[in-house]
Amino acid sequence: MIWAVILAGGSGSRFWPLSTPSNPKQLLPLAGPQSTALQAVTRLDGLVPRERILVVTGAGLAERMITELDLPRNNVLVEPRAASTAPALVWATWEAQRRDPSAQVLSMHADWSIREPDAFRHTAAQALSTALRHKRLVTVGIVPSRPETGFGYIVQGKPLDEVSRTVSRFAEKPDAATALDLMASGALWNSGLFAWTATVLMDEVRQHTDEIAPHLPLLEKGDVAGFFAAVTAVSIDVGLLERSAAVAVVPGRFTWDDVGTWDALPRVRSRDSHGNAVVGPVYLVDTDDCVIWSDGDPIIASGVKDLVIVHAHGRILVMPRRQAADLKAILDKLPPEVRDLP
Amino acid sequence: MIWAVILAGGSGSRFWPLSTPSNPKQLLPLAGPQSTALQAVTRLDGLVPRERILVVTGAGLAERMITELDLPRNNVLVEPRAASTAPALVWATWEAQRRDPSAQVLSMHADWSIREPDAFRHTAAQALSTALRHKRLVTVGIVPSRPETGFGYIVQGKPLDEVSRTVSRFAEKPDAATALDLMASGALWNSGLFAWTATVLMDEVRQHTDEIAPHLPLLEKGDVAGFFAAVTAVSIDVGLLERSAAVAVVPGRFTWDDVGTWDALPRVRSRDSHGNAVVGPVYLVDTDDCVIWSDGDPIIASGVKDLVIVHAHGRILVMPRRQAADLKAILDKLPPEVRDLP
Repeated sequence: MIWAVILAGGSGSRFWPLSTPSNPKQLLPLAGPQSTALQAVTRLDGLVPRERILVVTGAGLAERMITELDLPRNNVLVEPRAASTAPALVWATWEAQRRDPSAQVLSMHADWSIREPDAFRHTAAQALSTALRHKRLVTVGIVPSRPETGFGYIVQGKPLDEVSRTVSRFAEKPDAATALDLMASGALWNSGLFAWTATVLMDEVRQHTDEIAPHLPLLEKGDVAGFFAAVTAVSIDVGLLERSAAVAVVPGRFTWDDVGTWDALPRVRSRDSHGNAVVGPVYLVDTDDCVIWSDGDPIIASGVKDLVIVHAHGRILVMPRRQAADLKAILDKLPPEVRDLP
Repeated sequence: MIWAVILAGGSGSRFWPLSTPSNPKQLLPLAGPQSTALQAVTRLDGLVPRERILVVTGAGLAERMITELDLPRNNVLVEPRAASTAPALVWATWEAQRRDPSAQVLSMHADWSIREPDAFRHTAAQALSTALRHKRLVTVGIVPSRPETGFGYIVQGKPLDEVSRTVSRFAEKPDAATALDLMASGALWNSGLFAWTATVLMDEVRQHTDEIAPHLPLLEKGDVAGFFAAVTAVSIDVGLLERSAAVAVVPGRFTWDDVGTWDALPRVRSRDSHGNAVVGPVYLVDTDDCVIWSDGDPIIASGVKDLVIVHAHGRILVMPRRQAADLKAILDKLPPEVRDLP
């Protein structure tokens, strides 16, 4: 049966001051009226029922996730510590296999915006089919819409069948010129949407992931805390996909965004006729291409362009959109009593 | 004896959302820890005692002024309506003369910043002396420090004595090229600091100011409301100084600013090493030449320049400093419930 694993950890400080440790990015309605986490679950309707959706998150968010996503309590897996994506996905896949030895797993993140859910489900089904048929770890590669330097790329290899190919190599976040070359040569964005059977995933981890493989017996004993304490933090890309020969890629032709920063908001929300993405009581005069969000007081902006302006949790942030990716560095310069939010 | 008249009307919407009808510009600590109105009174220490300071203001502000300025109750003159500066100054001068037939009057505004109070008092004494000696209406002309287009200019005529001259003409707010010419040719800013004897002022008003002269009998009967209802609103400059031949000018070499807009704040307050004028909980990263005022939540600004950012009375305003003079036009575009503050 098909299972879904949704990675929903992370504090999301890149949406400060709207995102807080107790109300992080994935619980915010960034890309519409629902939180992106709820959108992630809703998007699976008709493909994966709630009882086969596993959510991996931190201890502080477990109750919020159960409520927000209306999931069975034991489908929310609480990571003892954040150890990047590989340990989380191995644990969740192992858990799916424990409940269903023939589990096929779709893995995704809780903070995505995807505009075409039908195309998403269609591609996910193709990826699962490829995973099953070719016994491979399948990544969905998004057809790029711009030479984005903030994503990794998948360079495609030879065809496996009508929809899937081998992976020639993974390219890390490129510089601008390389991104253009990659896009022109048909490389795809590495979205983080994966499909595999539990059997193949566990076999490949045992072969390639020294950071995790020696500690699998702890998991098999049910000692999750011991497993997380023992493993080395490593991403599924670096720790497994870049090492395994049994990788495949299926192209995804839907609009995908990881809503990584304030700057991404105009890509995933409707904009006014001046290109502004606006949420809350906001009044604009001659203002273009701004991102303005108020959970608090009315914001009146006039004559500005390309700014992020946010009022939330008793803080007001003003910065150029091009600095949005550097927000952590800005926050590091603030006194803790100003920066830290509950 | 020397009397002072301080004009303290006006709602000061140009400091929205900090200034409100009940807490207008002249009651705000714009140029230091005291309100500019209190600075205006304090600046007269040693020259004019409190019991000879008359403040003209609107009905809604009378109690605030009495408290803020620690003045005798009947020294706060409440205008029945705002009718520009001439009726207010005529009334206040007439009132000074009623209490002291030989009254010499210094007239000024409640919203100025003056950095050198000693030089101010010295110049004021010179202006009063000129007014008495030459029986003239004396304007203090500020030696310009920049070719400001927001002020009127006084073109000086021939010398009357060591410190004063006749006025050749008044020049309205000039364009940028004219302002440069005026500054280069020795013209002075028309500050609104005037000196006259009550006798000369009333004589000149009777001769030149048809908007007011026919209605003076109402004032003499004590019918202030009738006087204000009957007069035509007109400024002292247009209604009298530009018409009278008995005008003189004394140069003022002190730093004077009318703190007309948010943009003026860096001229009248200390700035940080990046040229920012900042009040309240404000945290800046790579931010230059901004005006940032919070009476409310912490404001964090990064990577911006030449902006005004204000949080006050539950409103957040963001605009370029160069738009500060146009704030009223911006406010006119807002819904009343957002614009109007108590």
